[in-house]
Amino acid sequence: MWPGKTRHAAIKQLQEFYVRRINQLEHCEIIETKEARGIPEKEEDRIKEIESEGLEKHLKNDYIICLFDKGKEMNSQEFARFIERAAERPTRAVTFVVGGFLGLAERLTDRADCLLSLSKMTFSHEMSRVMLLEQIYRSLSIAKGRQYAK
Amino acid sequence: MWPGKTRHAAIKQLQEFYVRRINQLEHCEIIETKEARGIPEKEEDRIKEIESEGLEKHLKNDYIICLFDKGKEMNSQEFARFIERAAERPTRAVTFVVGGFLGLAERLTDRADCLLSLSKMTFSHEMSRVMLLEQIYRSLSIAKGRQYAK
Repeated sequence: MWPGKTRHAAIKQLQEFYVRRINQLEHCEIIETKEARGIPEKEEDRIKEIESEGLEKHLKNDYIICLFDKGKEMNSQEFARFIERAAERPTRAVTFVVGGFLGLAERLTDRADCLLSLSKMTFSHEMSRVMLLEQIYRSLSIAKGRQYAK
Repeated sequence: MWPGKTRHAAIKQLQEFYVRRINQLEHCEIIETKEARGIPEKEEDRIKEIESEGLEKHLKNDYIICLFDKGKEMNSQEFARFIERAAERPTRAVTFVVGGFLGLAERLTDRADCLLSLSKMTFSHEMSRVMLLEQIYRSLSIAKGRQYAK
């Protein structure tokens, strides 16, 4: 789940590629929520507020994992075990939330069950979408004992 | 520099996108070296040997940075300063080496001036190419004080 459509065509293609792959292993869907538009970037709090509200509307009793630069870093094996454990709660959907280009309101990161960092480095929010999907696909492949290209 | 062409079309497009962007700031070229083909994956050492030899042919007095899963992790600011310092050696080209799907021969990682890890997580070697290019573009933008999308 993330605010706004993916604009970069090649990133969008990659995103769709990994979603198709993931769906061969587990049901997965992208939810693109309301994006703050036409607001000057300096009004950072307002943008984050609008986008976080849009995301919250779609969150029910989900197990929420927010991408967050100061979140927990895991290697792919640890991430695979983490996803397996998260998926064991049959009544709760596992939802990954990726913030917009300014990130998420604190209210949302406070509410998350887990804060995850993909890297010490900062990547564009659209790249992060694809990196997350690649890792979800990788970890499901690991969890299911499939071979996946290194 | 890496062995073999990028096969995934969307990843190739992204790669070309970032190379164009980087070239607006600094000269950058991709060198695709010899790839080991038709060798069973279990002959890991032979594959790494062939590909590392192919890479070495193109390395002269370069300042060599190898992507390596146990390498040093930096945040984007540290990486920007690191690239700036590396670029200050006017007689040496700065060369990033990304291994093939099995990685690099130890001889090459031993020879590197720096071993860099983009993430604790393992990404496909083609994804790593794009992630590296995105970070190079980001860090050159930071170093040159340009604004770049978060």
